[in-house]
Amino acid sequence: MEKSFQYVDDHFEQMVSELQAFCSQPSIAAQNVGMEETASMLVEKMKDAGIDARILENKNGYPVVYGEIKGSTDKTLLFYNHYDVQPPDPVDKWTYPPFGSEIHDGILYARGCSDNKGTLLSRVHAVEAILKSGHTFPVNIKFLVEGEEEIGSPSFEEFVHSHKDLLKADACLWENSAKDEDNNPVVKLGNKGMLYCQLHLKTGNTDVHSMNAPIVPNAGWRLVQALRTLKDDNDHVLIEGFYDDVLPICPEETEAWKKVPSPEDGLKKRLGIDKFVNDATGEQVNLALYTKPSCNICGMEAGYTGEGQKTVTPCEASAKLDFRLVVAQDPDKIFTLLRKHLDSHGFQDIEVSVTSAAAPAKTGVTEKFVQVIQRAAEDVYEQPLVILPTAAGTGPRDVFAYSGMPIAGIGCGHAGSVQHAPNENIKLEDYKEAIKHVVALLFHAEKEEIR
Amino acid sequence: MEKSFQYVDDHFEQMVSELQAFCSQPSIAAQNVGMEETASMLVEKMKDAGIDARILENKNGYPVVYGEIKGSTDKTLLFYNHYDVQPPDPVDKWTYPPFGSEIHDGILYARGCSDNKGTLLSRVHAVEAILKSGHTFPVNIKFLVEGEEEIGSPSFEEFVHSHKDLLKADACLWENSAKDEDNNPVVKLGNKGMLYCQLHLKTGNTDVHSMNAPIVPNAGWRLVQALRTLKDDNDHVLIEGFYDDVLPICPEETEAWKKVPSPEDGLKKRLGIDKFVNDATGEQVNLALYTKPSCNICGMEAGYTGEGQKTVTPCEASAKLDFRLVVAQDPDKIFTLLRKHLDSHGFQDIEVSVTSAAAPAKTGVTEKFVQVIQRAAEDVYEQPLVILPTAAGTGPRDVFAYSGMPIAGIGCGHAGSVQHAPNENIKLEDYKEAIKHVVALLFHAEKEEIR
Repeated sequence: MEKSFQYVDDHFEQMVSELQAFCSQPSIAAQNVGMEETASMLVEKMKDAGIDARILENKNGYPVVYGEIKGSTDKTLLFYNHYDVQPPDPVDKWTYPPFGSEIHDGILYARGCSDNKGTLLSRVHAVEAILKSGHTFPVNIKFLVEGEEEIGSPSFEEFVHSHKDLLKADACLWENSAKDEDNNPVVKLGNKGMLYCQLHLKTGNTDVHSMNAPIVPNAGWRLVQALRTLKDDNDHVLIEGFYDDVLPICPEETEAWKKVPSPEDGLKKRLGIDKFVNDATGEQVNLALYTKPSCNICGMEAGYTGEGQKTVTPCEASAKLDFRLVVAQDPDKIFTLLRKHLDSHGFQDIEVSVTSAAAPAKTGVTEKFVQVIQRAAEDVYEQPLVILPTAAGTGPRDVFAYSGMPIAGIGCGHAGSVQHAPNENIKLEDYKEAIKHVVALLFHAEKEEIR
Repeated sequence: MEKSFQYVDDHFEQMVSELQAFCSQPSIAAQNVGMEETASMLVEKMKDAGIDARILENKNGYPVVYGEIKGSTDKTLLFYNHYDVQPPDPVDKWTYPPFGSEIHDGILYARGCSDNKGTLLSRVHAVEAILKSGHTFPVNIKFLVEGEEEIGSPSFEEFVHSHKDLLKADACLWENSAKDEDNNPVVKLGNKGMLYCQLHLKTGNTDVHSMNAPIVPNAGWRLVQALRTLKDDNDHVLIEGFYDDVLPICPEETEAWKKVPSPEDGLKKRLGIDKFVNDATGEQVNLALYTKPSCNICGMEAGYTGEGQKTVTPCEASAKLDFRLVVAQDPDKIFTLLRKHLDSHGFQDIEVSVTSAAAPAKTGVTEKFVQVIQRAAEDVYEQPLVILPTAAGTGPRDVFAYSGMPIAGIGCGHAGSVQHAPNENIKLEDYKEAIKHVVALLFHAEKEEIR
């Protein structure tokens, strides 16, 4: 392992330069920009590193990149990543060009450098370091790199389910993680699920002069009335049955949560807020953030929203809601409950359409694989690895629910990486540690039980 | 009078052609388009008609056009109109060009033809018809034509109050009216007042990924919560004291309302709605429309409202509200009550700014001036004049409250004139009747008591 670490140190400049080239190649799934080029570029880099890589046909979506390397044991790890990135908009909010891969004060700025090209390439570079430092490869690895994560992985479930044999593994290293506000490395053991839907209502066929307000129904008011029925003053969702399937947190997970530092002060300062929802403090913050399902207004609109005044009674209104779900809430069931709720409150006229749905998924904190990741972290990081029983965000982990394998996410980001936002960035020192963490993990996996 | 009517019939083609020219000259106050040109054009036309017209200096706003004609009695009528028009947007919704003044099947299409250039010019043409048909002019007339009505008459109150002597009159013919859904001519004796305000709140300094929804305050939710406190399910405003100053309707006005035909069926059909607010039917419709104050959402917005999904917890939200007020509600007091309401419900953080404010104003249905207008209508219209004790809309009538004179509005529009909307139009036959109604009114005023 030390030889491989040394290889990383000796060749780090070259690795960073390859990461810069990879991040400079746009791959915006939402806009179909550079997708084929990026997939091909990745295959070439993986081959250079010694991985048997190729593009797998994905008739319903962007190319999937697959790669294998045989190890000296019969243990197999699946590495899940994605090569697509979020659009760089708003571009004028970037200090450095989003596809310029500029480095300033040891920090690389580029769309996708944290999510997910950096973490992806750190794994390729880890394989390269082990192979090129003369080691027999410790375990079998399968790279699975999709190109649609940032648009909700629409074809991913079908792809995975039709390649179950190929993708068979003992454990899965998930795409992404980032150091926390205290600079501790973090492993993420789950994702929330999500139901994203759009509400739309029409109270007439035309907006009218607002002098008619005493008699003509106002779509804006109706939307306000409907939305207000969804939650009480304490952020509790009032949809009947909404919490029915929420599983209690096991004692081991409760213990794990106690060890997760609260992001309280850093986050409040960064967002410019005085207090969290329900005045949550201390341990409550993480428990709410990670273990509570939510009902969020992503956007809403009615009538005139331009400059100055327009006296109008609007006939249309709409809202976009996302529900973040925890194990074992089912997005399809939540949609049914939402529809039922609106109907029973007299809002049959409000149309609801689903934009995307994903189930929550979680790997137990006591899984052996998690302990292996933890021990590997001790070889690399000075600060302790934080075990996050589940993340606040959503991803397609549930697609692998059939397999029963443990799934854990690690990565090269930090608390200020601002994924999805302007000035996405990673620290180069974090990138080096991320590579070494994967190297260490593979050597630990060789000798220790991963399942 | 008959000779003057004959003059109108004989010269109607020329009058329509002058109206077309006047409507083809844009005068968009909101955009400062063509204001000086239109004022000058109007002065020239008034002079042609025999009116002593000139532009009065208005240092805080667009030019005010003033005109006088001396009559054979010492009675004086003030004619209030405006030469500015609403912007033509959305232009692509017009069947004919908004400043093209095209005539199709006896209907003139042009921005401002109903509101207010047609009604304004019908009065100039009425003066012309009386003078040019060889009559001694019956009463003194003062024309007061402002250029800021469509932007809320910001400088009008100060202008009027600094010209009280010049504008002294026994009664005022207000700018505008239109035939109702049953084609009856209508005289409008009042306006509602209005308080237009914008609500804005900020819950943080940046939108965040919606995975943070369980802990980060959502400005959209907060706006929904605040708005929902303003009205109950029966459209009753819940701001404490909101209705305190509403004056009861006197028996004479109650009788008058009974004679106003309900717009129910025609309006429902035109707007594509099944039922009115609170299921109002029959007499309730007019009573609600004209005598109830209202609280209306003109527009609201939070977060992402574009295509598709964006998972965001918005830190800003805003709404535009208009309150239509009835005699003797005071917009300044309503603003104070709104602020107090938000504060006492825990929404101190919601900023409220006032965009415009106007007090309600109403002339009694038993005023002699109203009866004179009614008798004049009998000389012109086959259908009876509907006396509307007050209109649903807002205008600067309250500016003349100091004078105590009766104020009544008549005009050349019809129920489908769609003022402020694309395809604004008037029927040429209505224009002719509007001219003759003013002619008749002036002869009646000569011999009958107007105050």
